[in-house]
Amino acid sequence: MFFVSDNAAPVAPEVMAALARANAGYAMPYGNDAIMAEVRAAIRTAFEAPEAAVYLVATGTTANSLALALFCPPWASVFCHRSAHIAEDECGAPEFYTAGAKLVLVDGAAGKMTPAGLDAALAGAALGGVHNVQRGMVSLTNITEKGTAYTAAEVAALAAVAKAYGLPVHLDGARFANALVATGATPAEMTWKAGVDVVSFGGTKNGLMGVEAVVIFDPAKAWEFELRRKRAGHLFSKHRYLSAQMAAYMEDGLWLRLAAQANAVGQRLAAGIAATPGCALEAPPAANLMFATLPRAAHARARAEGAAYYIFGTDTAMTGDPATPLPARFVASWSTTAEDVDRFLALIRG
Amino acid sequence: MFFVSDNAAPVAPEVMAALARANAGYAMPYGNDAIMAEVRAAIRTAFEAPEAAVYLVATGTTANSLALALFCPPWASVFCHRSAHIAEDECGAPEFYTAGAKLVLVDGAAGKMTPAGLDAALAGAALGGVHNVQRGMVSLTNITEKGTAYTAAEVAALAAVAKAYGLPVHLDGARFANALVATGATPAEMTWKAGVDVVSFGGTKNGLMGVEAVVIFDPAKAWEFELRRKRAGHLFSKHRYLSAQMAAYMEDGLWLRLAAQANAVGQRLAAGIAATPGCALEAPPAANLMFATLPRAAHARARAEGAAYYIFGTDTAMTGDPATPLPARFVASWSTTAEDVDRFLALIRG
Amino acid sequence: MFFVSDNAAPVAPEVMAALARANAGYAMPYGNDAIMAEVRAAIRTAFEAPEAAVYLVATGTTANSLALALFCPPWASVFCHRSAHIAEDECGAPEFYTAGAKLVLVDGAAGKMTPAGLDAALAGAALGGVHNVQRGMVSLTNITEKGTAYTAAEVAALAAVAKAYGLPVHLDGARFANALVATGATPAEMTWKAGVDVVSFGGTKNGLMGVEAVVIFDPAKAWEFELRRKRAGHLFSKHRYLSAQMAAYMEDGLWLRLAAQANAVGQRLAAGIAATPGCALEAPPAANLMFATLPRAAHARARAEGAAYYIFGTDTAMTGDPATPLPARFVASWSTTAEDVDRFLALIRG
Amino acid sequence: MFFVSDNAAPVAPEVMAALARANAGYAMPYGNDAIMAEVRAAIRTAFEAPEAAVYLVATGTTANSLALALFCPPWASVFCHRSAHIAEDECGAPEFYTAGAKLVLVDGAAGKMTPAGLDAALAGAALGGVHNVQRGMVSLTNITEKGTAYTAAEVAALAAVAKAYGLPVHLDGARFANALVATGATPAEMTWKAGVDVVSFGGTKNGLMGVEAVVIFDPAKAWEFELRRKRAGHLFSKHRYLSAQMAAYMEDGLWLRLAAQANAVGQRLAAGIAATPGCALEAPPAANLMFATLPRAAHARARAEGAAYYIFGTDTAMTGDPATPLPARFVASWSTTAEDVDRFLALIRG
Repeated sequence: MFFVSDNAAPVAPEVMAALARANAGYAMPYGNDAIMAEVRAAIRTAFEAPEAAVYLVATGTTANSLALALFCPPWASVFCHRSAHIAEDECGAPEFYTAGAKLVLVDGAAGKMTPAGLDAALAGAALGGVHNVQRGMVSLTNITEKGTAYTAAEVAALAAVAKAYGLPVHLDGARFANALVATGATPAEMTWKAGVDVVSFGGTKNGLMGVEAVVIFDPAKAWEFELRRKRAGHLFSKHRYLSAQMAAYMEDGLWLRLAAQANAVGQRLAAGIAATPGCALEAPPAANLMFATLPRAAHARARAEGAAYYIFGTDTAMTGDPATPLPARFVASWSTTAEDVDRFLALIRG
Repeated sequence: MFFVSDNAAPVAPEVMAALARANAGYAMPYGNDAIMAEVRAAIRTAFEAPEAAVYLVATGTTANSLALALFCPPWASVFCHRSAHIAEDECGAPEFYTAGAKLVLVDGAAGKMTPAGLDAALAGAALGGVHNVQRGMVSLTNITEKGTAYTAAEVAALAAVAKAYGLPVHLDGARFANALVATGATPAEMTWKAGVDVVSFGGTKNGLMGVEAVVIFDPAKAWEFELRRKRAGHLFSKHRYLSAQMAAYMEDGLWLRLAAQANAVGQRLAAGIAATPGCALEAPPAANLMFATLPRAAHARARAEGAAYYIFGTDTAMTGDPATPLPARFVASWSTTAEDVDRFLALIRG
Repeated sequence: MFFVSDNAAPVAPEVMAALARANAGYAMPYGNDAIMAEVRAAIRTAFEAPEAAVYLVATGTTANSLALALFCPPWASVFCHRSAHIAEDECGAPEFYTAGAKLVLVDGAAGKMTPAGLDAALAGAALGGVHNVQRGMVSLTNITEKGTAYTAAEVAALAAVAKAYGLPVHLDGARFANALVATGATPAEMTWKAGVDVVSFGGTKNGLMGVEAVVIFDPAKAWEFELRRKRAGHLFSKHRYLSAQMAAYMEDGLWLRLAAQANAVGQRLAAGIAATPGCALEAPPAANLMFATLPRAAHARARAEGAAYYIFGTDTAMTGDPATPLPARFVASWSTTAEDVDRFLALIRG
Repeated sequence: MFFVSDNAAPVAPEVMAALARANAGYAMPYGNDAIMAEVRAAIRTAFEAPEAAVYLVATGTTANSLALALFCPPWASVFCHRSAHIAEDECGAPEFYTAGAKLVLVDGAAGKMTPAGLDAALAGAALGGVHNVQRGMVSLTNITEKGTAYTAAEVAALAAVAKAYGLPVHLDGARFANALVATGATPAEMTWKAGVDVVSFGGTKNGLMGVEAVVIFDPAKAWEFELRRKRAGHLFSKHRYLSAQMAAYMEDGLWLRLAAQANAVGQRLAAGIAATPGCALEAPPAANLMFATLPRAAHARARAEGAAYYIFGTDTAMTGDPATPLPARFVASWSTTAEDVDRFLALIRG
C-alpha cells in the first residue's frame, strides 16, 4: 500500500537483468558504448523519427532543463501550466539551465492548458518590444501533474497555438508511457506529428533505476545538446549502465507493459475511491496518478495499517475530527498490485 | 588489455549485489532512503569527521563543480594545476556552476603544483582592486592527472598557502582511494587535517556504477549544497541506488581493496614498461595511471592483439616508422589482471 | 504637452551647470573622484543613515537588478507586484543579475500589494523543501507603476510581513522623490525605519541625465556590490560626471523641489481630467503618473495639436468611433508646465 | 602633468556643447531619439558599412562584454592576449555576460599576439571533443594594453588565423581612434576589411563623457544585441545624451582630431623619456600610452611637483635608493599639453 510516488518503486526485474548483462568486461565511456547505438535505433523506431537526436540523462529535471535551455534563450519565457513540474518542483532548474529565462504560468482546469488559455497568455506577453522578456517556447506535461492526460489531438491544438507565435514546443513526458497507454496514441502522434519539437521521455517513474531520454526531432541542435549535457555534469562516464536500462525498457514493449500495469491498478484504485461513500476524486485520473479527498477516519484506518501517501493541508494529524475531508495524492506504479489496492480500499471503507 | 580508463571498467560484484539487495520493495525518494543514513555515517567515520555534510552525485564533474560553486563566488578565481580535470576535461562545468568564475592555471612538474608556484600565482592575482577577478579558492587533484600523488604533507603545504590568502581548498579525489593507497595517508590526514574544506570523493573510477560523494567538513553550507544539487538536476529520485553503491563501497574497506588492486597492477605495468628497452615512463606513477612513451612497433604489436589505450600525437597510425616513440596513457583498474599486464608487456617486448 | 514619460524630459539646468563645473581639469576615475565623497555624505545625511553604503549607477534597471542580486540567491524568489517594473519592463534583468532567481507576482489593486496578499503569496511558497524555489526577498515600488503611493506606514506593514519570513526588502524608488512629496514621509521613514534594506534611489526620471543611487543600509555587502557593479560594466571610468549630477540633485533640496513641481502639475492634470465629462481616472494618482480613460474624440483633438502620450488597446487609431473610451497613460515631469496642462485640458474638453 | 589615464581627462568642449544643445525640450527615450539616427549614419559612413548595426553603451567593459556574448557561446573560449583588458581589468565581465565562457590567454611580445602564437593556441585547444571547452572567438585590442599598435595588415593576419578555425573576431577599440591615427588605416581597413566582425568603438578615453559604440558588421544579430543590452541595464532611457556625445564625436572628424592631439603629445613624451639619460621605454609606443622605467630620483622630482601617473612594484616609495629604476605607465590624452610634457621632462632630467 505504497502510493507515495512511482519514483519510490523498485526497478523492474528485466532492467536489473540488463544491468547485470551489461556488466561484463570493458566498455567505451561517455556514450560511446555499443548499447547506446541500440537505444538510439530503438527510440527512433518507436517514434518513427529516423533522424531524431537521442540522448540519455539520469533525472527528469535534467531532461526538462536541458531541453528548455536548448530552445529558449535567456531573455525569453517558457509558457507552461501553473502546476507544471518545471515550475513547481525543480528548484529553479529551468532558470539555471536557461541562464535566466522566465516561466509564465498559464491556468487551466485539471492541470491542463487550453488553446484559448495559452493563446491569451501568449497574446498578452512581449508587448513592450525590447523592454520585456520575449516569447520563448511552450512546455506541456503529459500525464499532467494533476493526473489527467492530453490526447494527441489536444497536444496538437496547443502546439498549433505555439506555432502561430513561431515557438517551439517541449513535452515533459516523465509519465509519457502512461499517457500513451491512457490515450491510445502512438509516440509519433503524441509528439512530432502533433508539433512537439523535443520530448523528455521518462523512464525512472516507470521501472528504470534512473534514466530519461531526450528526443530532439530536428538534429540540428544535437551537438549543442551534447556540450550542454557535458558542461552540466550529466554525461556519464560509465554510460553503458544508462544505455542498458533504456535498451531493456524499449525491448519488446516493456515500457508500455509497465505503464499499462501502473495505469490498470491506478484506475482500479480510482474507481474504488470514487465508489467509496464520503470519498471523491478531484478529477477523473487518466492513468496512475490521482488526487482525492477522504474523510480523516478513512485516512487514519489506512495509515494505521501502513498505507503510505501524501495528505495535504495544515491539519493532517490523524487525531482531529474523523469526518473532516482531507485531500491526498495517490500514485500507483508498475509494481503496485491489485491486492494492495483492494486492501487499501477495504481499509478506507472501514 | 584494456587500459583506456578506469571508468571503462565494470562494476565490482559486491556493488552489483548491493544494488540487487536495494531493489526490494519501496524506498522514500530524493535521499530520504534508509541506506543514505548508513552511507553518511560510514563516510563520517572513515574521515573522522562526525559533523561533515555528505552528499551523493553521479559524476565527478558534478561533484567538482558543485563543490567549487559552493565556495567560489562568480567574481573570483579557482587556482588549479594547468592539467586539472576541472580545467581540461569538464567543458566549462566550473564556469557554468559558479556563474562565471575564472580558472587560473598554475604550472608544476608532473601534474603537481608546488607551494612556491601556487604562492606566486596567488601573489600575482587580484592586484587591481575591483578591476580584476578576486582570489577565490584553490583546487587540488589527487591522484593528479599525470598519475602522480600528493602526500598528505604536500597537500597540507599547498593548503597552508591557500589559507595564508584566506582561501578555501577543494580536493578533486576522483581517484582518492588510489591516492590513499599510494601514500599511506588516512582520509582525515589527506583532507581536513591538511586544510582541505571539501572533497570530491570518487567512486565511479574505482568500481562503482556512477557515484561520487561530496564531503563538506563544515556543514554550514549544507543546505545551500542541497539547493544547488537539486537545481542542477543532480538529486536522484531513486536515490537508494546511489546509496547502495556507496554503502557497499564503504563496507569492510571495499573501496581501499579495489584501489589497492588497481594500484598493484598499475605498478606492475609501470615497472614492466620501465624495464622494457626503448620504453620510458614520463613520471614515476604513484598509482594506477601513467604516461609512457613506446616505440611505434611496440604499440603496433599490442594493438594488433587488442590492447586498448590512448596514443597521443598527430601521427598515431601504426603504419609509420616503427622506431618512432609515441606517447600514450595507460590506466589500470580494479578489474585489470596481472595476466593482462604481463600479456601486454610480452607484446611490447616483441 | 509631452506626457509620454518623465524620462523623456530634459535635464534640470542646475544639473547641467554642475556637469559643466565638474568638467574642469582631471579627476581620478572609477568613483575615486572628490565629488563622490560629497554625494555619499549628502545621501547618508538625507537618509539619516551614517553607515549606509552608497553607489551610483546610470539606469534604474541596473540599480534594481544589482540590489536584487545582492540579497536574493539564484534559487530563491523575489515577491513583487504583478505590475512591477522589475517584472514587466526590464527584459529579465533581475533573472540575469541574480543568475536565475524567480519573480513571484503578487496581485493587488492600484499597483499596490497588501500585507495580506503578500503574506498569502509567501505562505504558499517554498512548501516543497529542496524541490522548489526558496523565498528570497520582497521588492516594492514607490510611486507604484500605477501611479499610486505607499505611505511609510504601508511600506512598514509590508516589510513586517517580509521580516516575519526572514526576508530582506528592496524599494524600487525610480520615483522616490515623488513618493516622499506625495506622502510627506522622510527618506528614513520611507526606508530603513520601515524595514527596507536597500533602495534604488532614482534621479533620471526627476531631472538628471542618467544617475540612480543604490543605498544599502547595512554596509556589510558593500564590497560585493562593488564587484558586482564592476563585473557588469556599470562602474564608470569618468565617474565624476555621475557624481556631479547626484551632488547637484542633493544640493539645497533640488531633488524634492523637482519632484514637487512634477507632482503639482501631475495633480493639476489629474484633477482636470477627472473634472472633464466623459473622462475618468483609473485610480487617484498620488504624484505625477496616472492612467485615465478619455473618449477617442478627446484624444483626437489633443493629438492633432501635438499632445504626446501612450494610448493603449488594439484600436488606437484616431479614426474610429469618437465616443469610444480609450485608456491612456500620462506622466508629468519637473519640466511640465501648468500652461501645458491647461492647454491639454482645454483640448480634451473640445 | 596628469598622466594617470586618458579616462581621467575632461570632456572635450565640443561634446559639452552638444550635450547642452541636446537638452532642449523632450526626446523619445531608449534610443528612439532623433540624434541616434544621425549617429548611426555617421558611423556607418565612417566605417563604409551601410548595413552595420550600431549601438551605444556607456562603458568599454560593457561594449566588450556584450560583443563577446553575442558571438561566443557559454561553452567556448575567447582567445586574447594575456594582457587584454577583458582578461585583466573587467572583473570577469566577459564570463558574466557570456554565461561562463573561458578566456584563453595568448602570449606575445609588447602586448601583441602573433599569427603563429594565436594559431598554436587555437591548435592546442578543443582536442577533447565534448570534454573540453570549444573554440569560440578571437579578441584583439588596438591600441594594445602595452601601448603598441596593430597595423591593419597585422589585424588581417590574425583574423585570417581565426577564420581558418571558423571563428569570429572582436576588436577592443577603446583607443580605436588612436590606433587609426598611429597606423594611418581607415576604419574599414582596420575592421571588416581585415576580417573583424564586431568592434568596441571607444569614445570615453578620447574626450567623451561616457559613450562607446558597438559596431556589428553583420546585422543579423542586431535584435539579440538589443535584448542583451536592455537585459543588462545598459539601455539608457535618456539616450539622447549618449547620442549627442557620439554625434559630436563623429562630426567633422573630431574623434580623429582628439586622438591626433593625444598621440602627438604622447609621442613627444615618449621621445623625451627615451632621450633622457637613465630612462627607457619598455616598447616604442605607437600612440598615447607607454610604459617606461625611470630612476627613482626622476620620479621623485616629478611627483614633488604634482606629476601624476602609476608607478609599479613593491617599493614605490620616493624615499629609497634614488638610482633604482622604477617602471611606470604614462597616458596622454586629448587635453594633455605640450607644456605639460615639457615641464615633466624637465623635471625628470633634474
